[in-house]
Amino acid sequence: MIIKLRQNADKAQVEHLTHWIQEYGVEIHTVTGKMDTILGLVGDTSRVPLERIQSLEIVEDVKRIQEPYKNANRKFHPDDTVVQAEEARIGGGHFGLIAGPCSVETEEQIIQVARNVKAAGATMLRGGAFKPRTSPYSFQGLRGKGVRMLLNAKEETGLPIVTEIMDLSQLPLFEEVDVIQVGARNMQNFELLKELGHLRKPILLKRGLANTLEELLMSAEYILAGGNEQVILCERGIRTFETATRNTLDLSAVPVLHQLTHLPVVVDPSHATGKAALVPSMALAATAAGADGLMIEVHNDPAHALCDGPQSLTPDAFADLSRRIFTFRETLCGLSSQPEKEEAE
Amino acid sequence: MIIKLRQNADKAQVEHLTHWIQEYGVEIHTVTGKMDTILGLVGDTSRVPLERIQSLEIVEDVKRIQEPYKNANRKFHPDDTVVQAEEARIGGGHFGLIAGPCSVETEEQIIQVARNVKAAGATMLRGGAFKPRTSPYSFQGLRGKGVRMLLNAKEETGLPIVTEIMDLSQLPLFEEVDVIQVGARNMQNFELLKELGHLRKPILLKRGLANTLEELLMSAEYILAGGNEQVILCERGIRTFETATRNTLDLSAVPVLHQLTHLPVVVDPSHATGKAALVPSMALAATAAGADGLMIEVHNDPAHALCDGPQSLTPDAFADLSRRIFTFRETLCGLSSQPEKEEAE
Amino acid sequence: MIIKLRQNADKAQVEHLTHWIQEYGVEIHTVTGKMDTILGLVGDTSRVPLERIQSLEIVEDVKRIQEPYKNANRKFHPDDTVVQAEEARIGGGHFGLIAGPCSVETEEQIIQVARNVKAAGATMLRGGAFKPRTSPYSFQGLRGKGVRMLLNAKEETGLPIVTEIMDLSQLPLFEEVDVIQVGARNMQNFELLKELGHLRKPILLKRGLANTLEELLMSAEYILAGGNEQVILCERGIRTFETATRNTLDLSAVPVLHQLTHLPVVVDPSHATGKAALVPSMALAATAAGADGLMIEVHNDPAHALCDGPQSLTPDAFADLSRRIFTFRETLCGLSSQPEKEEAE
Amino acid sequence: MIIKLRQNADKAQVEHLTHWIQEYGVEIHTVTGKMDTILGLVGDTSRVPLERIQSLEIVEDVKRIQEPYKNANRKFHPDDTVVQAEEARIGGGHFGLIAGPCSVETEEQIIQVARNVKAAGATMLRGGAFKPRTSPYSFQGLRGKGVRMLLNAKEETGLPIVTEIMDLSQLPLFEEVDVIQVGARNMQNFELLKELGHLRKPILLKRGLANTLEELLMSAEYILAGGNEQVILCERGIRTFETATRNTLDLSAVPVLHQLTHLPVVVDPSHATGKAALVPSMALAATAAGADGLMIEVHNDPAHALCDGPQSLTPDAFADLSRRIFTFRETLCGLSSQPEKEEAE
Repeated sequence: MIIKLRQNADKAQVEHLTHWIQEYGVEIHTVTGKMDTILGLVGDTSRVPLERIQSLEIVEDVKRIQEPYKNANRKFHPDDTVVQAEEARIGGGHFGLIAGPCSVETEEQIIQVARNVKAAGATMLRGGAFKPRTSPYSFQGLRGKGVRMLLNAKEETGLPIVTEIMDLSQLPLFEEVDVIQVGARNMQNFELLKELGHLRKPILLKRGLANTLEELLMSAEYILAGGNEQVILCERGIRTFETATRNTLDLSAVPVLHQLTHLPVVVDPSHATGKAALVPSMALAATAAGADGLMIEVHNDPAHALCDGPQSLTPDAFADLSRRIFTFRETLCGLSSQPEKEEAE
Repeated sequence: MIIKLRQNADKAQVEHLTHWIQEYGVEIHTVTGKMDTILGLVGDTSRVPLERIQSLEIVEDVKRIQEPYKNANRKFHPDDTVVQAEEARIGGGHFGLIAGPCSVETEEQIIQVARNVKAAGATMLRGGAFKPRTSPYSFQGLRGKGVRMLLNAKEETGLPIVTEIMDLSQLPLFEEVDVIQVGARNMQNFELLKELGHLRKPILLKRGLANTLEELLMSAEYILAGGNEQVILCERGIRTFETATRNTLDLSAVPVLHQLTHLPVVVDPSHATGKAALVPSMALAATAAGADGLMIEVHNDPAHALCDGPQSLTPDAFADLSRRIFTFRETLCGLSSQPEKEEAE
Repeated sequence: MIIKLRQNADKAQVEHLTHWIQEYGVEIHTVTGKMDTILGLVGDTSRVPLERIQSLEIVEDVKRIQEPYKNANRKFHPDDTVVQAEEARIGGGHFGLIAGPCSVETEEQIIQVARNVKAAGATMLRGGAFKPRTSPYSFQGLRGKGVRMLLNAKEETGLPIVTEIMDLSQLPLFEEVDVIQVGARNMQNFELLKELGHLRKPILLKRGLANTLEELLMSAEYILAGGNEQVILCERGIRTFETATRNTLDLSAVPVLHQLTHLPVVVDPSHATGKAALVPSMALAATAAGADGLMIEVHNDPAHALCDGPQSLTPDAFADLSRRIFTFRETLCGLSSQPEKEEAE
Repeated sequence: MIIKLRQNADKAQVEHLTHWIQEYGVEIHTVTGKMDTILGLVGDTSRVPLERIQSLEIVEDVKRIQEPYKNANRKFHPDDTVVQAEEARIGGGHFGLIAGPCSVETEEQIIQVARNVKAAGATMLRGGAFKPRTSPYSFQGLRGKGVRMLLNAKEETGLPIVTEIMDLSQLPLFEEVDVIQVGARNMQNFELLKELGHLRKPILLKRGLANTLEELLMSAEYILAGGNEQVILCERGIRTFETATRNTLDLSAVPVLHQLTHLPVVVDPSHATGKAALVPSMALAATAAGADGLMIEVHNDPAHALCDGPQSLTPDAFADLSRRIFTFRETLCGLSSQPEKEEAE
């Protein structure tokens, strides 16, 4: 942390400040120039309250030069985290292909889609039971009933399931869910994150529409700090001025996050683009960018989907895309996404 | 709603679509040109599922030309809503001046600040008990204890209190709170909004960092649809590329919202700018833009505030600003912010 | 400037770096901690090449802690700059009210509007002769002929004129123009800025749609560095995700710029909002925020304007707004915008 | 185009409007409902002035439902445009690999880099002679001398050259340049675009930092409307709130542009990310997204580059990346980037 003092700062106050900072166990080095005086703080500054220092009259500016997260930081945890749900693994070379409908609609639908995506190579089944919808007049999901349908689909196909929680009070319904998804709008629902930190179950944490990668890592830190180390990060598009796509998929997030953290990173091209026609090219691009997995919407009847139909692939289109993704990973990376092969190595 | 059909769309499918749409009780008018065919839907289209229509193969594009909110819409409710908490009123010419510290820290602090801001003309006391913080290592608020301290400050000064809820499970602690604040990060916490719709208590709904005004109104609609008509909207800055201020205060939101809705609109210049030095000019600007109230951070010792010190005014600075705001409103608008005077008219 | 070295950086390379930096005439202070080593550069670092240092293998991060502009910096030039065109002055307490149509259309139109706005208190006449239009099929302005019509309007009314240049090659036509406007799209047309720096004529520099305030000041620095000290900055809205207004007017730019620079700041609410109905409230808000002037579109027949009709006020609406702005400035600030009164003081 | 009339719009005025619109040669269909009246305009509406209609008192809203560009529109020109410079072709299955330093620094440097990138498979040489720099104190390029050095490098290696023009007045120096680049800051320098439309030489048009894809196509339209059909579009990152990368590379622009236009689309991952370490993964991702080419910064000594060193690859890193790009294209797409092979098909 670097503190730039105001010109002619009161000496007694500066001395008072340095004593107070030293109580946080960090060293202070003073750099005095003709016009500026700078205090350089060295050591673990993660608990030094930047805002409070910034508010002092003698201080002109404060800049952090260390990452404010620890548990999520690759510097302190160099090896890739591998998240596992049943047989499916994500991270550390394991590729996760999560597919399924936006919403669970009927038992027949979800079982049919589960069979389709499994046959095409998916490693997990996604499906929304609790649906965050902008309008109170839109379909809000089958809720508890939807979760039970997903569990039935799991029983039929063996695919572990990923589904979104919208509120702490729904937690009891998620006991058998394999991976709990935190949606973009809840990325900074800190009460929820704290509680999920006490579970020992994988959490798929989606990046908020207007959140920086550092904020995404701070939200992961809430979960990790509680002792739950099974966190998957998900890039799903950010809000920008461009309206040609629903959101702007920020694929550079993939290599940037891989530098900063050991947590696996998956990409959701369906929600990002909002258009089925754009999903295959962005899914391939995400794979090329080094993503540890993909999350893709597949619906057996997109034209009659109760929500987000326009961005869902048909099972056939998904099977075709899946083939291209696997071919690409095998050829270029010499990596296979099928867990059994990887175990055989 | 306007539906643009693809060139050479199958006639039977188009007929099927028009029958299906008519079941929603809207009229359809077909406009056929050399290159394009357009369906114009007339009537109450708020329940017609735009996404589902958009996903049909025969459809090229769908555009809504009516607002998707009803209860919040000024067209259906031309008169200004006046929100009342104890004697304080906001909206319809009544100006609310909400002031207090970012966080409640001690009973002495909150009572002291409450007395100061009341003396300076504030009509409500704000103070955070539950604090949403980006970092799990930052001060998270005094929680239930903080709410009780606020209630004591109310007893001392008579000022109704405004404080933020972060999760549904905290609702029992808010029984005596006068105005429940929904923070920017929870603007689309739909489970919370639905529940607040069942209360009969004013809700101060802050605009999310990356949310459009239409989305803000849709979130208000969640509360209004539940029967709770006491909603105050709050502009508090949006996230943009500019880093000179913490957020970009979007003051044009004030006149735009006044056109679209009957709900009162207040502005929070403290969180928007993040810097005390910018608060007075932006508070005056918000008043000039026609805001129905202001929400301003005041701390008796900003340099030692546990959070957001840099954006808090001292009680003296607040008193000075308050005087300028009242003078401005009296002179230019011929309006006074003190409710008793208004009743005397 | 603060340079954070990588852990285990090669000592010889570090020494080489420090020698090289010292050639720029700055002092270096080294701060060594357990995990990090930091170099603090003190003195005039404006010519030290940040990017080059950033690219060195031994460097983890570089942060500037001084503003990269000098001539525009209030620290080195504490007194407000007053820009003058004929009798009209802007800055240092002088308020400029610049009004006129988006485009010059006919001699009758521009003279009529000039008379109207002068009668209502405008201090300068604006009007576009060269028009930057997104579409090649839109009206592109009367060009040289338009400039001459503006000069005729000046002769008729005495109002100094402000008009936009779009390319260096047009400069000869601007010889008699009082204030040359650089539009938002040209804010970083550096060849143009350099050339304008060699003039001794006021330049009104509009902020680009996606440019930070620091970049605006760097563009002003291009002009100032050439010796032309007559620069007026203009906030006219930035591009964000919000679509309710054409752009998002960033009024906090006014107090921020007043802290950072001595140059006057005017606000253009017409282009920012794109809607006449929003102009009066945002014009008042800009005045309350401390702007040194306003730039407002006025057209005698907005419904038939050749461009940007929807954002133009009628002469009557402008006269009404002008009265409110002057009243507001007189009452609240004790400041008058009329130069003659100010000289009388 | 759809025009929504205000409730109770004056009948005579509506009739006047419809007559006036019909003069543009479009048909009008009126849709009357209980609450709304809508006019549907059918035919070529590209010259109907939307803004002017929007400003009429009887009009509530106007929406365009056709693209405002014609020459760039794939609907009117379904076949891919292939742009050719010497032997290098881009578009229609031909992949362009444009590489070279940010700035031309010395003749030795540019010839050395040209040889390196040619050996690694580059099809064109890039290098900046005129450099747009935020600061007037930064290196501004070798200008005319730099162009001559590039031409020498072309003579040595046979690689066609791409270099940026900053102002119309520099055009005479670009006579022998193979591809003229228009930088992001000049994307809406309409005077420049018009002039380039009169040339018969390929133009590489970079997307502006805050410009939509529609605006990019409108700027291409300026060039195409002048008769120059050789336009290459370039995605190079947009400005968002995220600061982890210099800009946010919008890769979904590639498939979206391929739907909307016949013009080839290349991607510049170097400027977008600003960091060499991120270039390879984003270059592969762009290839996977279907880009027609890449523009990559390569410098023989990035640590001593005069500008943008941190984002330049070394020649070795570029050769490695180039191999991976070609392998990827051959395997997955069955497409080769070498034009001679394609001609053999």
